[in-house]
Amino acid sequence: MNIIDIINKTKNLIPLTDGEITWLVSSYTNGEIPDYQMSAWLMAVCLNGLTEEETVSLTLAMRDSGGKLDLSSINSITADKHSTGGVGDKTSLIVGPAAAACGIAVPKMSGRGLGHTGGTIDKLESIHGYRTELSEKEFFNIVNETGFSIISQSGSLCPADKKIYSLRNSSGTVDSIPLICSSIMSKKLALNADCILLDVKCGSGAFMKTSEDADRLARLMEKVGTAAGKKCRALVTDMDSPLGNNIGNALEVREAVEILQGKRKGRLYDICIELTANMLQLCGKGNIGECSEMARNAIASGKALEVFRETIRMHGGDERICDDVSLLPQARFSHTIRASRDVKIVSVDSQELGMASLLLGAGRINKDDDIDMTAGIVMECEKGDNISIHAPLMTLYSTVCSDFSAAAMRALQALELVSI
Amino acid sequence: MNIIDIINKTKNLIPLTDGEITWLVSSYTNGEIPDYQMSAWLMAVCLNGLTEEETVSLTLAMRDSGGKLDLSSINSITADKHSTGGVGDKTSLIVGPAAAACGIAVPKMSGRGLGHTGGTIDKLESIHGYRTELSEKEFFNIVNETGFSIISQSGSLCPADKKIYSLRNSSGTVDSIPLICSSIMSKKLALNADCILLDVKCGSGAFMKTSEDADRLARLMEKVGTAAGKKCRALVTDMDSPLGNNIGNALEVREAVEILQGKRKGRLYDICIELTANMLQLCGKGNIGECSEMARNAIASGKALEVFRETIRMHGGDERICDDVSLLPQARFSHTIRASRDVKIVSVDSQELGMASLLLGAGRINKDDDIDMTAGIVMECEKGDNISIHAPLMTLYSTVCSDFSAAAMRALQALELVSI
Repeated sequence: MNIIDIINKTKNLIPLTDGEITWLVSSYTNGEIPDYQMSAWLMAVCLNGLTEEETVSLTLAMRDSGGKLDLSSINSITADKHSTGGVGDKTSLIVGPAAAACGIAVPKMSGRGLGHTGGTIDKLESIHGYRTELSEKEFFNIVNETGFSIISQSGSLCPADKKIYSLRNSSGTVDSIPLICSSIMSKKLALNADCILLDVKCGSGAFMKTSEDADRLARLMEKVGTAAGKKCRALVTDMDSPLGNNIGNALEVREAVEILQGKRKGRLYDICIELTANMLQLCGKGNIGECSEMARNAIASGKALEVFRETIRMHGGDERICDDVSLLPQARFSHTIRASRDVKIVSVDSQELGMASLLLGAGRINKDDDIDMTAGIVMECEKGDNISIHAPLMTLYSTVCSDFSAAAMRALQALELVSI
Repeated sequence: MNIIDIINKTKNLIPLTDGEITWLVSSYTNGEIPDYQMSAWLMAVCLNGLTEEETVSLTLAMRDSGGKLDLSSINSITADKHSTGGVGDKTSLIVGPAAAACGIAVPKMSGRGLGHTGGTIDKLESIHGYRTELSEKEFFNIVNETGFSIISQSGSLCPADKKIYSLRNSSGTVDSIPLICSSIMSKKLALNADCILLDVKCGSGAFMKTSEDADRLARLMEKVGTAAGKKCRALVTDMDSPLGNNIGNALEVREAVEILQGKRKGRLYDICIELTANMLQLCGKGNIGECSEMARNAIASGKALEVFRETIRMHGGDERICDDVSLLPQARFSHTIRASRDVKIVSVDSQELGMASLLLGAGRINKDDDIDMTAGIVMECEKGDNISIHAPLMTLYSTVCSDFSAAAMRALQALELVSI
């Protein structure tokens, strides 16, 4: 096989064989194909796409670049969840405990964030003492005890994805649906749960800006998961507005706990019930109506909160935050933005709120940047609300940043307001 | 400026500014942009193209990556010629002397070949003693004395082209009209002649396979040359059949000398007259009819041969080959392929003849391969001929290869024959 022939085929829209793709991935991973040839191929994929068969081959080759987890020591049916991510998305912290409370096992690996706010692992690390780097044995043990654990992505799974993802990031080849699909699905398939629930976020605060793209990604991931022998479903959910009221690491854990405490309802609660119900149905726990009821009961009964509390404790974290969210790290500075006239909130641009959070210190620009766990935004209004003069629109928090002017300017412009 | 933004613009069909392209070329040339980012950009160009304005900017940025020749010490108007190349193309060895015999100066730099046969520099080196690496002073001196000199491409001109061309070769990003244009024209503009005549070869033996592509490349190169303040014309000429009868380094020099001796006419002679006439007209020597007449006279009078003889002598080569072509290196082995029945030659595939020549040792697969100067093919038939049984179709020559079976099989299949 010859890399130039392979690049030329994709450039000229000639599908690659399974053997060619397997060779490409293994040769790149072991360093026989240099970055400059791989990035040319990745750009050809960005512009010409891949067929479904090619995407399946690519995903399986990436999965097989490292080991697969052996989940046989977990006693229940296993389910994994992945969200394509968006500003304020803390659903994993709610859906995992709720599904576990209904009797399924949710072993999950997650990443750190690059962008507006941290990833799920960063959010969990805002809980004092919480350890995200555990051995497989500890990980499986927690899942068997509580039904739910999230640890950080293991380096031994999908080394091909790690290498390709880093190259895509630095060669302008990120936005390709087949490449996004193979990156997500190779990791999910290496984790090896029986059922995979995918949450494709769509809208201004998400990576997929249009419902057409979100649908394409969702259908493609379902096909790849099914071709690999998994029960797999992908939902498309709205991400035009931020999910919930809180953006930022500790602030998002706080909101997740308040949902699990039954103190908050609204769009975030509704979407978590929908995701949990779909996960339960995928695992054969009943029809969608029955599964929704189970999910609501898991929260209302406090059982989901108990799962989260026990999981935090077994990870070495301060589980008392489940009763007293003020034990989470608190920002040193805050600044409340108030309405200067009577206004109606026409829209909330979550992308812009994400950028404001980044300015406050909640996210990373470079891989090794430190995150301010306390930084972020709490929204006091949402789309459609009427807000009276002097009433709060949102509050910004930070410890590393005491001058809020830049972040406040950016956050305010995320709101489309009309006078009433 | 940011390389990822630039890659994304080209990927999303947003034209780059002149400043962005200048930055891209200089940052890549000085090593600040790594290969894997440049190859991703080059693939985006292959698939999305560049605008004319972008192509002009790219070409000028590549020209300005090194020095420009100062031709002010040359006493006449200067003209340069470039052919996009094809099997058996030895026109530079005829057009240069013919144009010089008509009073214009033709200082030319040329490359070594990668492919079927050598480049013009390799062909000239088949003349015993001919030196292709001269100082600028020697080069200008020869041009002032004889009107014509060809030396090998200077490393100090267009370092950007050298680096980009090598990356394109190894990243599957060769076949892009704007990239081909910028590679050719940056070198022509750095050589800095007053007039530039371009010969775009079209057909099975050329890089441009369709007349549509050849026309696009021709028009684009004219626009870039004109935008850079040069008199510039691009002709599209047929390369479905090989140009002339001889393919291979010394064999092609022999044929060029025979044309200059007035002993051969035919398609090669005609095309050399056409090219010379266009070069003379571009330099203001008269209308195309007058210039054609001048070109024919230059050969008929023996003046063009005298230019070639004197040029060879000043380059240190054995100028006696101009009277006795048998002084050129001779192959140790030869093999004549004869018709096994009465046949008509329907077509001659020059690409396949080129591949057969490569098997005989006439070309290079890798940059540092040695060339057999004596190897190649002499055609005894051309498209449309009727050939009787046992009459010769072609003769293969080689010194490094004594087993002609593979090359003969390939060469024979280059002919489409029907029984008559």
